[in-house]
Amino acid sequence: MKRVGFLLKVREECIEQYKKYHADVWDSQNAVLKKHGWNNFSLFIRPDGLLFGYVETPESFHASLAGLDTERVNTEWQELMAPLFEIAEGERPDTSMIELEEIYHLD
Amino acid sequence: MKRVGFLLKVREECIEQYKKYHADVWDSQNAVLKKHGWNNFSLFIRPDGLLFGYVETPESFHASLAGLDTERVNTEWQELMAPLFEIAEGERPDTSMIELEEIYHLD
Repeated sequence: MKRVGFLLKVREECIEQYKKYHADVWDSQNAVLKKHGWNNFSLFIRPDGLLFGYVETPESFHASLAGLDTERVNTEWQELMAPLFEIAEGERPDTSMIELEEIYHLD
Repeated sequence: MKRVGFLLKVREECIEQYKKYHADVWDSQNAVLKKHGWNNFSLFIRPDGLLFGYVETPESFHASLAGLDTERVNTEWQELMAPLFEIAEGERPDTSMIELEEIYHLD
């Protein structure tokens, strides 16, 4: 199992919309996340929109992202989310995540 | 159980020292963390020193911090860590953590 921490930045004016979407994520999107090993997955937000993700994957973040990328529903979800993020024009949020280095763990 | 995400900022010039300490945390410090419900606790770092913590506590972050605060070994550990953080003079890192809002979770 690999624990992953990653960062993204939600546009400040889109925070409420982003939270609304995440209070009610599509069942189909949750299902493909589970299918590709996004376990114990949480998103946390700072008031300015800095977004921190924590997820436990069976193999690697790369493998779980690649698996998700094969799912049409994920493409639709990412297209819906993309305008809410501070990422380059045409970029997708799931390929713009900055993976952090884990430097300590206590079970 | 309460999942907690929090942020701190390590001084850029202290990152290597901080990582070295956390590659070999005192057994006594790990023991008091466990005792006060710091479960599945990870620290992640961004190259500029932004530090993200993820921890699962039985009750609340406040309660786990308060419990830790009763332990002499923790006071010593926090005094050792304090100069490595971008926090106000005289402040302790464990009381300077910014708790983030969890906006999504998938088991």
